[in-house]
Amino acid sequence: MNAPLSPVQWKDGTLLILDQRALPRRMTWIRARRAETVAKAIESLAIRGAPLIGIAAAYAMALEAARPDATERQLRETLERLRGTRPTGFNLFAALAEMDAMLSGGARGLSGRMLRKAKELHRRDAHSCLTMAEHGIGIMKRGERVLTYCNTGSLATGGIGTALGVVKTGYRRGKIAEVFACETRPIGQGARLTAWECATAGIPVTLICDNMAAALMASGKVDRVLVGADRIAANGDTSNKIGTLSLATTARAFRIPFHVVAPLSTFDSSLPNGKRIPIEQRNAAEVTAWIGDLDRLRGIQVWNPAFDVTPARFIASFITECGILRPPFEFSSGSVCRK
Amino acid sequence: MNAPLSPVQWKDGTLLILDQRALPRRMTWIRARRAETVAKAIESLAIRGAPLIGIAAAYAMALEAARPDATERQLRETLERLRGTRPTGFNLFAALAEMDAMLSGGARGLSGRMLRKAKELHRRDAHSCLTMAEHGIGIMKRGERVLTYCNTGSLATGGIGTALGVVKTGYRRGKIAEVFACETRPIGQGARLTAWECATAGIPVTLICDNMAAALMASGKVDRVLVGADRIAANGDTSNKIGTLSLATTARAFRIPFHVVAPLSTFDSSLPNGKRIPIEQRNAAEVTAWIGDLDRLRGIQVWNPAFDVTPARFIASFITECGILRPPFEFSSGSVCRK
Repeated sequence: MNAPLSPVQWKDGTLLILDQRALPRRMTWIRARRAETVAKAIESLAIRGAPLIGIAAAYAMALEAARPDATERQLRETLERLRGTRPTGFNLFAALAEMDAMLSGGARGLSGRMLRKAKELHRRDAHSCLTMAEHGIGIMKRGERVLTYCNTGSLATGGIGTALGVVKTGYRRGKIAEVFACETRPIGQGARLTAWECATAGIPVTLICDNMAAALMASGKVDRVLVGADRIAANGDTSNKIGTLSLATTARAFRIPFHVVAPLSTFDSSLPNGKRIPIEQRNAAEVTAWIGDLDRLRGIQVWNPAFDVTPARFIASFITECGILRPPFEFSSGSVCRK
Repeated sequence: MNAPLSPVQWKDGTLLILDQRALPRRMTWIRARRAETVAKAIESLAIRGAPLIGIAAAYAMALEAARPDATERQLRETLERLRGTRPTGFNLFAALAEMDAMLSGGARGLSGRMLRKAKELHRRDAHSCLTMAEHGIGIMKRGERVLTYCNTGSLATGGIGTALGVVKTGYRRGKIAEVFACETRPIGQGARLTAWECATAGIPVTLICDNMAAALMASGKVDRVLVGADRIAANGDTSNKIGTLSLATTARAFRIPFHVVAPLSTFDSSLPNGKRIPIEQRNAAEVTAWIGDLDRLRGIQVWNPAFDVTPARFIASFITECGILRPPFEFSSGSVCRK
């Protein structure tokens, strides 16, 4: 298996960001010297994946702190700017909370401490991925056929991935025989990123349209569904890329286990349930761009939420770096792992 | 409301077929003088929609029968050619069975009789649409919000449509307040055809990606799901455009009634259940074309079934021209209406 590609790299005082919008056609790198460049990369989906966004935002703070004219006020404004880039994924807020705490520790050596913290978050996420993968394959039989969604691999995290990390490790160990990747409209992270990442890793992968997952499950070709998460509420309700919910309801209808693979940085125990997870609405053009000339579609509305919320009752278990969490789910701050 | 557009029109001894692949960008008409042109239009999806395919195939037989050198053997070959165009939808086979029966009636005046029969099937379908719409709105309250799938309107039938016919009539009578149209990957019949047809008719329509239907249903914005059908087995198992099944499983999870709107020509009581409905597999390029350069996706497989089968247990009722059929479903030849 090829070494995983790291889509954020700190180099000579700048942050290199792989522009995922151009994948798999082109490998284009954005060189960020300011936090604003990182913020725009997050908003435009040049960089995406809840864990990876958190890491990129931490590096963005380190970029600003390293500037000779950095002030605490400016850095606090930068924190707010980064917090405003995407509302749903929790890892962003978890990472920025750590950077926020450092700000309160004073200006002395702040730049170096922030960079070390960003690198620590990056390493910690890479390590979590490996641990989640071990826990994940522990619940599998041999030769399972897994359905996954969106992209949750090296392009979405600081390591091998969450759900796709389990897939990669599971394939090497014989636990997983093949993978089905949903294309994940409207941006196609499954078609463009997951299919490519699996093919690159030599994992047998079959691409399907999102609406084909139900037929696949009904036909008995799927043993397990593995997805990532953007934010998990205290009761286990889970927001993830739009479309996840329909996989969950369909998996339930055909008695296929549905698992969420996520590090602890995705758990937001301050929210009692999923009703209060903010859901980002994105622009209509993401949905309609492929149709071409839209003159004849004047008068139609478009609804384009980027995420949905899967109620906890559809989730067989959470696969985390501290083990498998089974129902009933009741996560409170600092106690996720003790469940 | 504008008069419905008729996508097949008999004119001066030829069949005009609206090329739906170019919609909504361009109105291009195919002028068919031979059945082979119609067969290719069906295979390429220039013309689609189970009831409309049946009508077009009937006209195609009339085209061939009108040729001075027509022989019974040639006409039987044409029947087989047309039967082979698309395997799933039953209306095609039902229409061709009627033409087949005429062939056995001898050559005398066959051409005129076949054309009259094709026109009769066309009119009969138009009339069925109106009757289905009346029955359909009979089960609705006022101001309902309906989710629909693929295209089941004037572009799919000989009249105002099946599911979309109910929508059009329901909107005029105040029973339906607004419609959600799923884009229907990979060909986009919902995005290109249904959204356009609704907008043209002045019906408030919101386009969503197929994977957004679950979030919409979970949010309480959908009162009812109305879909068409390609073939209905004796026990009520129903094949329809790929993606229908996931709407059915999700509607069940959120207790939203899921209805199939279809004329009797879609019921195939010779099949005991949906397991034996043949499902057409189409080519990978339909799924991957939008990604552009596929070199980096070498090594991936693509699965592209055109239809799925919704088990009868997910279906609240069938809306047909002879009324509302409720469970338990048990359709036998000639007795669908007596249920």
